[in-house]
Amino acid sequence: MQRVTLQELSQEFRRVLDKSGFTPEKSALCARIFTENTRDGVLSHGINRFPAFIDYVRRGLVKTDAEPILVEACGAFERWDGQQGPGVLNAHRSMARAIELARMHAIGCVALRNTNHWMRAGTYGLQAADAGCIGLCWTNTTVLMPPWGSSEPRLGNNPLVICVPAKGDHVLLDMSMSQFSMGRLNIAAKSGEPLPVPGGFDSDGNLTGDAAAILRSRRPLPIGYWKGSGLALLLDCVVSVLAAGQATFQIGAEGDETRISQLFVAIHLERAGCAEAGAQLIEQILNDLHSAQPSDPDRPVTFPGERTSRRRQESADHGVLVDTEIWQAIRKL
Amino acid sequence: MQRVTLQELSQEFRRVLDKSGFTPEKSALCARIFTENTRDGVLSHGINRFPAFIDYVRRGLVKTDAEPILVEACGAFERWDGQQGPGVLNAHRSMARAIELARMHAIGCVALRNTNHWMRAGTYGLQAADAGCIGLCWTNTTVLMPPWGSSEPRLGNNPLVICVPAKGDHVLLDMSMSQFSMGRLNIAAKSGEPLPVPGGFDSDGNLTGDAAAILRSRRPLPIGYWKGSGLALLLDCVVSVLAAGQATFQIGAEGDETRISQLFVAIHLERAGCAEAGAQLIEQILNDLHSAQPSDPDRPVTFPGERTSRRRQESADHGVLVDTEIWQAIRKL
Repeated sequence: MQRVTLQELSQEFRRVLDKSGFTPEKSALCARIFTENTRDGVLSHGINRFPAFIDYVRRGLVKTDAEPILVEACGAFERWDGQQGPGVLNAHRSMARAIELARMHAIGCVALRNTNHWMRAGTYGLQAADAGCIGLCWTNTTVLMPPWGSSEPRLGNNPLVICVPAKGDHVLLDMSMSQFSMGRLNIAAKSGEPLPVPGGFDSDGNLTGDAAAILRSRRPLPIGYWKGSGLALLLDCVVSVLAAGQATFQIGAEGDETRISQLFVAIHLERAGCAEAGAQLIEQILNDLHSAQPSDPDRPVTFPGERTSRRRQESADHGVLVDTEIWQAIRKL
Repeated sequence: MQRVTLQELSQEFRRVLDKSGFTPEKSALCARIFTENTRDGVLSHGINRFPAFIDYVRRGLVKTDAEPILVEACGAFERWDGQQGPGVLNAHRSMARAIELARMHAIGCVALRNTNHWMRAGTYGLQAADAGCIGLCWTNTTVLMPPWGSSEPRLGNNPLVICVPAKGDHVLLDMSMSQFSMGRLNIAAKSGEPLPVPGGFDSDGNLTGDAAAILRSRRPLPIGYWKGSGLALLLDCVVSVLAAGQATFQIGAEGDETRISQLFVAIHLERAGCAEAGAQLIEQILNDLHSAQPSDPDRPVTFPGERTSRRRQESADHGVLVDTEIWQAIRKL
């Protein structure tokens, strides 16, 4: 492990993106998002994922010069086709458009098809919150998880984001429908550390905290058993229908995870007449949450997203601790 | 237990509602919803809940003559005040309005404050699907569940509904953020049957399937541990801000569960230009799901809501099996 400054990170991402065919403008935004994801502590969808992203670019699965096109516009809803462009750029542009629609109609909804992995899902929730909006978005994925009552993978883990602006850290929920994301399972399998709670089934059908066994059986556990299985299915149904795009079973047939479908909803709090009162209410809700006695006195109750600004400051002050092997690999790209 | 026909149920509900101060029109719709919830097998929010509903009416917590009023209209979003009227009527009217807004803007969103318990959450998802819309709605509740990392209840279990129209049964997800709803915990505690998976903590902080122990400790388990805890918090934040209504901590301070906040979103598939293709895609998604090998050959993999039409037919053919004690209590109301 070694420390790398945010500037070094950003410059290195820029260098590789520039030589991979991105225009300067796209390269800058893409590098910014990869840097910010890393800065916020989401290395799995920041620096650690960057080499795989570049691999997709070089294999032509992510088309650097593709521009999303508007397929259908009706009122507060629009459907866009991502043209297999970079997922982070397509997603950023889609949430930006949802925010514009929300400025006009109070709520705006953009469905996006033919796009690629958006890296950290929370990026687009924070984007909405920074613009004074509640942000709600989700993506489908390739086949990763069996439905409840089967051991055969059929569902995506379909990460879901809900973000509400707050005076300090925005309240940011960013969660996949499997108890542990694939990134988390891979890390635990590599380290051999047991998961804190059962994360799936082993090949004999027993619940286990052994991440390697779960990856072998391809049976991660949905959150809440049948409930997360149902929620993952519904998220796929809604997003693929509205995007007129590929559903999880079709993405799964492609081999690589590409041409996925995403949904972006923004609700403009000022336009909806509840910005000021809403901010006060959120503060009260979070105060009430913080008043709950922690089970472990050393671990106060926190809200999702609470430590983001602290992590940002730490990253700005001291750089980010990264895997030397990955960092070296990026420098050779 | 005894069998009661749907006509008997409906007539009995009508009789009690009529004499409790409902106008004939409101009485008819309210009786219809309680009958349909019972018919669809959701007795916990049909017949079994009817006496408690009437108790709330008679105590003045549910105001039979209240009409929801429009507080703010901006584009595709409206905020309504339920005036503490009957939850089922307020919710039905709010989803109807969201559908109207969706007809105009493709997506419509109604936030409702000062309302009461809507009984079966799925009712309003099905209402949207019957109108050719994707329906998304949720409610907050009183304080029912500790946040992750604490044993002190602070969160509601905030049921969430997502419903997608399908050719046969609509795909209907209707789930609370606790692994088991309060209704389910009460039934299991009464029968003494262990829950199929751990549903909460006992007073010593150990995970347990003993529903009575969970009710005593007031520590139901959120789905997916910290994930459901976060999702419950965010659902409360979004709905209470948009409704400019009460959040869970404020409802909890009231003693009775009243003056709650709800959100209704409809997306009109025809208006959004994806009705026909969407229906085909849903059929393919469900076929793919059904192709998954079941772990238990006697229990094929199903989608949420799959058996609704079969249960409806059975109820129509044979009546509904109800608790004799509850039925007699209703006849005496």
